[in-house]
Amino acid sequence: MSARDTYTQLVNHLRKTATLASCSAVLGWDEQTYMPPEGAEFRSEQTSLLAGMIHDLATDPRVGDWLGELRGSALSADPLTPEAVNIREAARDFDRQTRLPKRLVEEQAGVATRAQQAWIEARKQNTFATFLPWLEQTVALKREEAACLADLVTGPGPHEPYDALLDQFEPGMTAADVTRLFTPLRESLVTLIREIRDSSRKPDQEILERIYPIPAQREFAMQAARQVGFRFEAGRLDETAHPFCSGFGPGDTRLTTRYDDHHFPGAFFGTLHEAGHGLYEQNLNREAFGLGMGSAVSLGIHESQSRLWENFVGRSEAFWTHFFPKARAAFPAALSDASLDEFYFAINSVQPSYIRVEADEATYNLHILLRFEIERPLVAGDLAPKDVPGVWNETFRRYFDMTPPDDTLGCLQDIHWSFGGIGYFPTYTLGNMNAAQLYNAAQSELGPLAPMFAAGEFAPLKNWLVENIHRRGKQFSAPQLIQQVTGQSLSHVALVDHLRAKYQPLYGLK
Amino acid sequence: MSARDTYTQLVNHLRKTATLASCSAVLGWDEQTYMPPEGAEFRSEQTSLLAGMIHDLATDPRVGDWLGELRGSALSADPLTPEAVNIREAARDFDRQTRLPKRLVEEQAGVATRAQQAWIEARKQNTFATFLPWLEQTVALKREEAACLADLVTGPGPHEPYDALLDQFEPGMTAADVTRLFTPLRESLVTLIREIRDSSRKPDQEILERIYPIPAQREFAMQAARQVGFRFEAGRLDETAHPFCSGFGPGDTRLTTRYDDHHFPGAFFGTLHEAGHGLYEQNLNREAFGLGMGSAVSLGIHESQSRLWENFVGRSEAFWTHFFPKARAAFPAALSDASLDEFYFAINSVQPSYIRVEADEATYNLHILLRFEIERPLVAGDLAPKDVPGVWNETFRRYFDMTPPDDTLGCLQDIHWSFGGIGYFPTYTLGNMNAAQLYNAAQSELGPLAPMFAAGEFAPLKNWLVENIHRRGKQFSAPQLIQQVTGQSLSHVALVDHLRAKYQPLYGLK
Repeated sequence: MSARDTYTQLVNHLRKTATLASCSAVLGWDEQTYMPPEGAEFRSEQTSLLAGMIHDLATDPRVGDWLGELRGSALSADPLTPEAVNIREAARDFDRQTRLPKRLVEEQAGVATRAQQAWIEARKQNTFATFLPWLEQTVALKREEAACLADLVTGPGPHEPYDALLDQFEPGMTAADVTRLFTPLRESLVTLIREIRDSSRKPDQEILERIYPIPAQREFAMQAARQVGFRFEAGRLDETAHPFCSGFGPGDTRLTTRYDDHHFPGAFFGTLHEAGHGLYEQNLNREAFGLGMGSAVSLGIHESQSRLWENFVGRSEAFWTHFFPKARAAFPAALSDASLDEFYFAINSVQPSYIRVEADEATYNLHILLRFEIERPLVAGDLAPKDVPGVWNETFRRYFDMTPPDDTLGCLQDIHWSFGGIGYFPTYTLGNMNAAQLYNAAQSELGPLAPMFAAGEFAPLKNWLVENIHRRGKQFSAPQLIQQVTGQSLSHVALVDHLRAKYQPLYGLK
Repeated sequence: MSARDTYTQLVNHLRKTATLASCSAVLGWDEQTYMPPEGAEFRSEQTSLLAGMIHDLATDPRVGDWLGELRGSALSADPLTPEAVNIREAARDFDRQTRLPKRLVEEQAGVATRAQQAWIEARKQNTFATFLPWLEQTVALKREEAACLADLVTGPGPHEPYDALLDQFEPGMTAADVTRLFTPLRESLVTLIREIRDSSRKPDQEILERIYPIPAQREFAMQAARQVGFRFEAGRLDETAHPFCSGFGPGDTRLTTRYDDHHFPGAFFGTLHEAGHGLYEQNLNREAFGLGMGSAVSLGIHESQSRLWENFVGRSEAFWTHFFPKARAAFPAALSDASLDEFYFAINSVQPSYIRVEADEATYNLHILLRFEIERPLVAGDLAPKDVPGVWNETFRRYFDMTPPDDTLGCLQDIHWSFGGIGYFPTYTLGNMNAAQLYNAAQSELGPLAPMFAAGEFAPLKNWLVENIHRRGKQFSAPQLIQQVTGQSLSHVALVDHLRAKYQPLYGLK
């Protein structure tokens, strides 16, 4: 059989695997949106069955045989051709999936289910002790996982156990890279946030807490999502307790949000955020569905798309120059006596708070940095799980000049560790840094973006992202892609500059 | 390995197969309810993949081995034990699935897809000639299918090709049975409908065509469905172009309906109808999911549950004695000046019409009888597809004293033949006959039902159906079940008596 025939077999198998995974995505979406409560037990049987079948397909020994043949073939010769990229990424997935012992995977799944229940209980009762044994088990299993995957890490050294976990979300990046990026960011942010705190100017948040009827919020958020380029012919917006974006596959991308009729920003910026993810999903190369060339680069790049539309576009003055009159028409009771300036300042309020998911654009990153500083030694074995609350509170105080009054407002607030999502948090702030650098690169190529936004024109930026990010799939790693598209390796500078440029006039900083 | 171990393996495999089929049901529901239009193409890839995997599981040769061992074992000795029933039904499915050549199944799937497109076009353009070649191919393939399955037919002879098709929907019944039932029904109905036509009393339908706001319709229909026993903790009601009920599995049954804000009965009786199906699904034995003991007996029995709640309960005077004041409160603009008597007569109007799905409770059955009279010789080879329009129109005239003005209002109106659903239509009228006989049996056991309905009490009837029908799964065939529960074999008498008893006072018949 020729290498080309082998490649075709591999591609068909990968598409089949991805199509089955997409069936599971539909069930996952339904579970969050419309499933009645008593359907939960059977739904977990359905999704377990699919997970097992997907795993069987992904680890089919034939895939190993095909890849063995293809890695040395002419199809892999030029590493940037679609074929070479698809082979490389298939090998990456196959290696990772086959490297983990079945016993470990099953144990992790079992612990994750019970750890999440314990976490829910612990957070409700504010008792870290309830969660501690599960955190210990989770960390131990993740350390074992990291050991299994250590030699698959591709980013620069010196290597440490955390790298193998991070690599699954942000291929090509290591803990050392993240530390190099986060250390100067932290210093700049702490300073900026203190300056803002000490400013005598404060926005009036009350504007955002008037009555915003939910049907009008939905309509208005959809209008904005549509205008920035999300196509509802190939997508939807529904309501869930925890907003997300799920790209089922070609032609079908689902966004969700949640509404509070006394709080405008939640659903609106949440929808723009998910629409940013959705634009990425909608503009992936559909011919390459299930293959490296048709997949998102990394979580940090995916998050850059959501943050870019949510914050760099959606919280800009120019955006609201266009949308504020529409907002006034949509919410006459709330906004008829408000000015654009007041509104713009209110949606850009900076205010240290305990809960990450409620944090503003500036303080948000400190929440992430704190988590990274805890996860890293936890995985290295340098921090005992029992010491997490103390370290959390101490670090929080250093960053925010505040101490969480309890663990529910501290180290118990996030679900991630309970499901084993260690190594995931950094991608949120990498997303913000990527977004800042991409925004600048787009602007230097397209000219000033603000006048376009003020005129309601978002297609130039969207098309630039489609061309430079979405259509490239995994041809490059995230660090390579950023270098290539922005002309520089990733750094904290663009993000800090963006934040300072925005807050200086608002808060009257020096 | 003991027979018990073999049985356990079989059961696990059947559950797995049914669970995978239930995943496909979720995707099917989403396709009809919420999927964006551009998702259609990829959705068909997802469902084809699942269909292939389900077929592979269902025809796994190990199933044949297990069944071979179990058919002669002690577990099959007493045919009414759960084990024996589950083995028998598994064998029935396996035999049918493995009897059909893969080539035939694939050809049928391909023809069905294209035949449906041709049918849509033919119906729109009113050109039977467009559909004719597809009807010819479909009939030829169904005849081939019938030949493959002929020796699996269990009902009484003399046998003919149609039996093998009917047997898939209504196991244990043959064309001869259906003819025996339908012939006297037809004579009684034709007479009854002529008497009604000649009556000088006519209901005022205008009451039902006032403004019924859709949110209130939804609320009111859900209230009624809940009150007859459908549990929304384990189900939902959504909106689709073509209403249906889909029981995904334990704890999750989805109903759909469609609304017209100028037509009350469509959504309301449609919801009650689907809720009747839903009650069956919700009360199947969940421990026996995927097995004969946890499955519905037949389409004719399933339909009896929907028709019973829609017509025997929902269109009764007692039902509206309870619900009419609530309807008035829900739709004050439409009903404040209407009386219960006017309303009750309006929802029981009998009026011959061309379209089956819009037909009333009495004329509906003649639409079904007509289709059976065409399908049967079509499958036998005694009627050429090209002659269908002529025979349709001639038969319609005999039954209704009207001739369809064109084929869109005649033989092109239903989707069934285009997807190969030949042998399906009789189950609708069998459902009505079953419902009538079951209703009488319930009443002779529970006492008069009307006073209960008038007091808003539906639990006695629901519980009687759960115990006598839902919980029995496929322990008995449909004819056996009806004999056992009602003490008589199925006949037209109870249905005709019910219709005459209802219409006599309304229309002042003799």
